Amino acid sequence: MSDRSFLAVVLAAGEGTRMKSSRAKVLHEVGGRGLLGHVIDTVKAAGADRLAVVVGPDMRNVAEAARSDWPECGVFVQDERKGTAHAVLAARAALQAPADDVIVLYGDTPLVAPATLKSVRDKLAAGADLVVLGFEPDDPAGYGRLIVEDGALVAIREDRDADPAERGIRLCNSGIMGFRGTHLPALLDEIGCDNAKHEYYLTDAVEIARGRDLSILAAKADADEVMGINDRAQLADCEAVFQARRRVAAMAAGVTLVAPETVFFSHDTALSPDVVVEPNVVFGPGVSVASGALIRAFSHLEGASVAENAQIGPYARLRPGAEIGAKARVGNFVEIKKAVVDEGAKVNHLTYIGDAHIGAAANIGAGTITCNYDGFNKYRTEIGAGAFIGSNSSLVAPVTIGDGAYVGSGSVITEDVEKDALAIGRGRQVTKPGRGAELRERLAAEKAARK
Amino acid sequence: MSDRSFLAVVLAAGEGTRMKSSRAKVLHEVGGRGLLGHVIDTVKAAGADRLAVVVGPDMRNVAEAARSDWPECGVFVQDERKGTAHAVLAARAALQAPADDVIVLYGDTPLVAPATLKSVRDKLAAGADLVVLGFEPDDPAGYGRLIVEDGALVAIREDRDADPAERGIRLCNSGIMGFRGTHLPALLDEIGCDNAKHEYYLTDAVEIARGRDLSILAAKADADEVMGINDRAQLADCEAVFQARRRVAAMAAGVTLVAPETVFFSHDTALSPDVVVEPNVVFGPGVSVASGALIRAFSHLEGASVAENAQIGPYARLRPGAEIGAKARVGNFVEIKKAVVDEGAKVNHLTYIGDAHIGAAANIGAGTITCNYDGFNKYRTEIGAGAFIGSNSSLVAPVTIGDGAYVGSGSVITEDVEKDALAIGRGRQVTKPGRGAELRERLAAEKAARK
Amino acid sequence: MSDRSFLAVVLAAGEGTRMKSSRAKVLHEVGGRGLLGHVIDTVKAAGADRLAVVVGPDMRNVAEAARSDWPECGVFVQDERKGTAHAVLAARAALQAPADDVIVLYGDTPLVAPATLKSVRDKLAAGADLVVLGFEPDDPAGYGRLIVEDGALVAIREDRDADPAERGIRLCNSGIMGFRGTHLPALLDEIGCDNAKHEYYLTDAVEIARGRDLSILAAKADADEVMGINDRAQLADCEAVFQARRRVAAMAAGVTLVAPETVFFSHDTALSPDVVVEPNVVFGPGVSVASGALIRAFSHLEGASVAENAQIGPYARLRPGAEIGAKARVGNFVEIKKAVVDEGAKVNHLTYIGDAHIGAAANIGAGTITCNYDGFNKYRTEIGAGAFIGSNSSLVAPVTIGDGAYVGSGSVITEDVEKDALAIGRGRQVTKPGRGAELRERLAAEKAARK
Repeated sequence: MSDRSFLAVVLAAGEGTRMKSSRAKVLHEVGGRGLLGHVIDTVKAAGADRLAVVVGPDMRNVAEAARSDWPECGVFVQDERKGTAHAVLAARAALQAPADDVIVLYGDTPLVAPATLKSVRDKLAAGADLVVLGFEPDDPAGYGRLIVEDGALVAIREDRDADPAERGIRLCNSGIMGFRGTHLPALLDEIGCDNAKHEYYLTDAVEIARGRDLSILAAKADADEVMGINDRAQLADCEAVFQARRRVAAMAAGVTLVAPETVFFSHDTALSPDVVVEPNVVFGPGVSVASGALIRAFSHLEGASVAENAQIGPYARLRPGAEIGAKARVGNFVEIKKAVVDEGAKVNHLTYIGDAHIGAAANIGAGTITCNYDGFNKYRTEIGAGAFIGSNSSLVAPVTIGDGAYVGSGSVITEDVEKDALAIGRGRQVTKPGRGAELRERLAAEKAARK
Repeated sequence: MSDRSFLAVVLAAGEGTRMKSSRAKVLHEVGGRGLLGHVIDTVKAAGADRLAVVVGPDMRNVAEAARSDWPECGVFVQDERKGTAHAVLAARAALQAPADDVIVLYGDTPLVAPATLKSVRDKLAAGADLVVLGFEPDDPAGYGRLIVEDGALVAIREDRDADPAERGIRLCNSGIMGFRGTHLPALLDEIGCDNAKHEYYLTDAVEIARGRDLSILAAKADADEVMGINDRAQLADCEAVFQARRRVAAMAAGVTLVAPETVFFSHDTALSPDVVVEPNVVFGPGVSVASGALIRAFSHLEGASVAENAQIGPYARLRPGAEIGAKARVGNFVEIKKAVVDEGAKVNHLTYIGDAHIGAAANIGAGTITCNYDGFNKYRTEIGAGAFIGSNSSLVAPVTIGDGAYVGSGSVITEDVEKDALAIGRGRQVTKPGRGAELRERLAAEKAARK
Repeated sequence: MSDRSFLAVVLAAGEGTRMKSSRAKVLHEVGGRGLLGHVIDTVKAAGADRLAVVVGPDMRNVAEAARSDWPECGVFVQDERKGTAHAVLAARAALQAPADDVIVLYGDTPLVAPATLKSVRDKLAAGADLVVLGFEPDDPAGYGRLIVEDGALVAIREDRDADPAERGIRLCNSGIMGFRGTHLPALLDEIGCDNAKHEYYLTDAVEIARGRDLSILAAKADADEVMGINDRAQLADCEAVFQARRRVAAMAAGVTLVAPETVFFSHDTALSPDVVVEPNVVFGPGVSVASGALIRAFSHLEGASVAENAQIGPYARLRPGAEIGAKARVGNFVEIKKAVVDEGAKVNHLTYIGDAHIGAAANIGAGTITCNYDGFNKYRTEIGAGAFIGSNSSLVAPVTIGDGAYVGSGSVITEDVEKDALAIGRGRQVTKPGRGAELRERLAAEKAARK
């Protein structure tokens, strides 16, 4: 199969009015990735060497999303919405140089497995001219049935036209179809619009191909794979299927999920064996976690890496660019952004670390803030190995704290602190006996006066 | 129907001992609102112009709750618990001025839909004298069955008295009944207590009405609507039904709920189309969110409004009086209380803003605290448009920071800062070479000595 | 029964390769407690006076875990894995002094109820020589069936050997067996390994006992109780059953769980009636909460006690040693560790309290940090009753703030503050007119220059 060329045609022109959204339907997300992106990932994984995406008018965002995933892809505009065959014809230019395999998919059907597309391609490679992808829903009512006789697909029967025996057939049409590329243009040209809506339906290719004695087969997907998305409830259903798959896969790989139903993955989350994930954890895109790490409850990670045996959370937020070293600890109400935390360092409480490097075994006290932004520019904070930053300190970047240096609690540090030095920057305490009681009386009187 | 008068009689005298609570049963909450409150909302929505609530002795809290929702409502005390008809008779004074429609409901049955009550009223308006609300539970065993013949309700048969054919009937008695108001007092007077428990049952009105040749009909509710609450498990079940309804409704209205089962609504939560809600978000009472806003994971909102395209969270807490402007951002571990955050302002990290106004496009650094309380009184903080508050600053209210003013990181600001001024209030840094290493050695020695 | 001796033999030698873990299978956790620990708790509760644990080679951690729960238990190493009877024989030394009752259990089957073991013991006490614990799974296919005739267990039939009638039997073998202790050694000695895997199976004892005309009975467990754990998915399933049980039990005891499925208990969580728990709360081990307390959303408690009518959260983290007094309040983004918070004290926002005592009705301002660690040692902070700690203060321990003392906002407190005194320790504010605007221009220019 690998020496066969493969063109994927993804139809993404649907308006998605039932989403009630100003955003194009195929740009809504599942697992932190757009629906169209999922389809593009899938066709890539199934070996596609060319991609054509058909969009509606005024869908520049969709075109851009497609090109950002696959810069050389062809984007074609279907000016009027006149059915699926009409949509494929919008990409006629891409069909001119015929690929061995052409598969037509849908931008709003994100969960098709690469293996399923490969099974379609296998049938084409074995000589089929047209392959229709079927699935068996729990309740087939309303779907077109795939009528298979002697191994060949002889018709797609719409539900309303089916006789009782045909209604008993459970294999239904997903709409996804594979074609021998050389045949496709001619088949498309022959499809008419002599039907109630005056649209051109790609499924009519089956009857035409049958008239030409072409070889037509059915392939089969799991029902979950071909869930299409037309409204927000279906979007949520699809997300739920995606999440369930990821949870099962993570556990099978040796990850403990204490409460799997409360852990949310992104499309690219990578967890190693013996990672333990407590309840209520959200993994945004771009996260990898190494063996032995513990991700505690209520943590939120995006664009971050966590090394062996590190502990994250509870209530830790790792933002893009956070790289947490082995055995390091990031504790509660701590935010780390664009910062490397070296092995064994501790950032345990109520801290913001941004644009920084924290050396090995350094200890960052509760309430520490790296002041990395002046309203215009961002600056770096360097903290050396074994340094100790006293609680509630402000490190005004750009600033460097040397290895083994010591910063007193409550300090505002504006100048570099050399290796092994002690730095303190805080007001001197003044205590006035009895004045607390006086103040209290005055404030209480003021309160009373206000009433 | 709108010109017919409607009196709702809500029975709320049950002790609720199975709740094992010191709180009256009907004051337990679903969707952040008391059970009785839900029933009152429902009868209002169904057009009630009078309300009578029957409470038990020592239920002052229930009476107060009823009156706070409907100041002119009648509250009647049922001194002894002698059955539902006895309870309705406690409200005899309210029945004297007969309403066209009287519906008897239960304070512990909060999910009845207004449309269902309207269907009862429609039947009364069309000439029925008595309407019993039925429902079809999954398993009807144990419930009284509604025996309907030729469209008329002829009897309510208790499960134990039912013959096998009657047991096959799925329509069961919810206990909710509608009456032509002029008939009700006489029906009640005729109900006796010749039964095992010597109680007066409102359902006996059916047999009496039948003896008088009155017109008796059945109406129908969804089984979910008439879930009664007797213990904490049923309370949780009811909450789950309430939440499921709200989630479905939000998605149908164009809201993305990434993981609907992890988002919790209150009775009055208002989300616009194209709001996106990430997993694990709790909406307390009094929240509205405008289109395009993103509510990130682990956020908690109560009594707050969020304008177009604002971003909230993750881990943001908006408390009552928080008004977040368009495109503003409230980030992680940030609490906002009684404060207006104008368009485009940013409060991104580890901050407490209380009793304040933040001008448009102002930037509030990480760790900023408005010191709004002196133990007795609360004071306001005013921050001008475009102001920059350096990280870890304390703004000691009452205090005003002018437009475009700049506060240095780690400052304690006790005096007003005029427009475009720079203010700094922090200790001066002192750095002592080598003293960090010395300190470390001494502390390590002390630690060793302690062992 | 109480005067009968009871030896529990727990088989814990399984390698658990399907867990894909470097940790022994029986040390994985459910409800915050190791699987083996659950089994040990259960046999204790069922009256065991001796415990023998059979481990595999190189399972020092398992032996240690067993001994930490039951110091006098016998730990025996099964050098080769040759079946369950072979494993029990590894504990031969423990069997020498025969107990009246011996029950063989499995370290990876943590949810057996004490009452179920008692039912096995009751049958032994009533004269049975051997009792096999059965259960009725939803789908018995694959399990050995318990063939019971005239009340006696006559055989355990493996699924592959069962005839169709036997396959219809729903009662299956859990593997847990009770023995009259005096018979056990002889039965074990007679078990052979004449089977496909050449292993010694404990279930063969049934046939041998039958040959000796011993009395053999079946007892019955719920299917949930005998769930064994072989991989992470089963671990999660078991956790889910555990959690569901705890949630039901809490609600039955008068606790409100707004969203039960989002509340996670540990094995020893103790909640009193009229505690209300909002969504998304995690209870780690060692937590007790008294009546009337409210645990708000997103809170995390471990090793902590909460007194009557206290309010915790949202987003509060109580760590081991936190003792929260009656009516006290711990608010959002607050961490409390090893600290007593007296009645009515308030710690409402963004605060770290560690190694401290907070007096009654004291008010701790937002952003307060107890600086309790110097990199080597921990020190205590004492805050008196009615003290007021201004926001964003740093209390550098060891330090004592007297009753009724007042600390100004933004202070760094390094010396004790006597009763009723006022202490301030912060830099003096300097304001420079127009310099904010100048700074802004310069920073903007720098930003532009960088591009």
